[in-house]
Amino acid sequence: MNKIYVVGIGPGKREAMTAEAESALAGSDLIVGYSKYIDLVRPYFPNHPVLDTGMRKETERCRMAFEKANEGMTVSLVCSGDSGIYGMAGLIYELSTEFPETEIVVVPGITAAISGGSVLGAPIGHDFAVISLSDLLTPWELIEKRLKCAAEGDFNIALYNPSSHKRHDYLQKACDILLTVHSADLICGYVKNIGREGEAAVVLTLGELRNTQVDMFTTVFIGSTRTKVINGKMVTPRGYRDV
Amino acid sequence: MNKIYVVGIGPGKREAMTAEAESALAGSDLIVGYSKYIDLVRPYFPNHPVLDTGMRKETERCRMAFEKANEGMTVSLVCSGDSGIYGMAGLIYELSTEFPETEIVVVPGITAAISGGSVLGAPIGHDFAVISLSDLLTPWELIEKRLKCAAEGDFNIALYNPSSHKRHDYLQKACDILLTVHSADLICGYVKNIGREGEAAVVLTLGELRNTQVDMFTTVFIGSTRTKVINGKMVTPRGYRDV
Repeated sequence: MNKIYVVGIGPGKREAMTAEAESALAGSDLIVGYSKYIDLVRPYFPNHPVLDTGMRKETERCRMAFEKANEGMTVSLVCSGDSGIYGMAGLIYELSTEFPETEIVVVPGITAAISGGSVLGAPIGHDFAVISLSDLLTPWELIEKRLKCAAEGDFNIALYNPSSHKRHDYLQKACDILLTVHSADLICGYVKNIGREGEAAVVLTLGELRNTQVDMFTTVFIGSTRTKVINGKMVTPRGYRDV
Repeated sequence: MNKIYVVGIGPGKREAMTAEAESALAGSDLIVGYSKYIDLVRPYFPNHPVLDTGMRKETERCRMAFEKANEGMTVSLVCSGDSGIYGMAGLIYELSTEFPETEIVVVPGITAAISGGSVLGAPIGHDFAVISLSDLLTPWELIEKRLKCAAEGDFNIALYNPSSHKRHDYLQKACDILLTVHSADLICGYVKNIGREGEAAVVLTLGELRNTQVDMFTTVFIGSTRTKVINGKMVTPRGYRDV
């Protein structure tokens, strides 16, 4: 049967891939993906045929995967982090109605909230929300509403896509919304280049974060009122110690 | 240097562990953990010394890990899913101030929202929240507030610990809160025994979920208003197809 693996490769380093992801890629006739993600896995599978596509060609890329599968190939479609969280799994299912003969296997991966969290300490040790600040596919008003609701629920928050060339002030706008609920000394943090060269973690307050410029390779963590700093690590206790 | 790895082992099957988790366990002198999680990894490392403890002895278990590390051992403390999300990483950092000579390495793992999501389809393909329904360590009022806020923000939601012997009606109570915001035909789903024998996924409406009894080995997924069913899979599109 024609088969597409939608593979979450994690942050990029091979050690953070699951065995399942590794063997899906190894067992595929073709690896398809956005060129930046292809670059991450190519060194591990140097002899594998790959097909890379540009950014923002998601529908095209997924269609290409189905077409190659229809030619009889086993295809892996790579996603950074997890394949389901802001990944291609949803779009593959949407298009699957046009390609009913293709089997779909979603292979999960370590998303940035988890890999970045392990670098910062334990920032999402209790209930948390994940919000993308990209308004390419989501109205900014809905993003604002979600930020407000997450702050009101005192959730830890992981912010994806906190910045881009065109959206250099979005993190500042997001912090201003959070500051309508939280105080400026709320513990926050961010991690750059998770699991890659140049990995760096910073712990700071929400007030400081508001005036910080981060790049698009950064994941930002907002604390809850229970979050604290322990030996330079950002930690949200679950509460075991109080029992 | 004395060293503790806090290892997220994912849902349980070996293929869902990362290479990093695998080598942390393989390279440890001792594997410490709650007996149920020790049972999951013991078959993969049959000759490794292990130390298992009962449930709800989290502080004791972590202290034991530090004490063994202080004796010069490299210790792995295993957590199901991720080590940071409702795991032991936070508690280890809290206790680390008493054991400053021990190095701590947090090894991330695939949490149930991700592994369960890949079984159901792509339920958390857009902004989402993770909430535990256990009120052992969190006041029920805060859980209720977070459910309300997450529903108002139209987040997808993954519910952990939806049930236990003493809390058989908590999922029903949670659904009743969600129903004050969402309609009864909102798409939901749940996965039992993720990555283990007896794995089963069900897609249903919020109204049906309200009247369903799930067990403690189940992770529940609440849709957003954009979630739909495609060929029996629960899918929350990110919106690529509309571009």
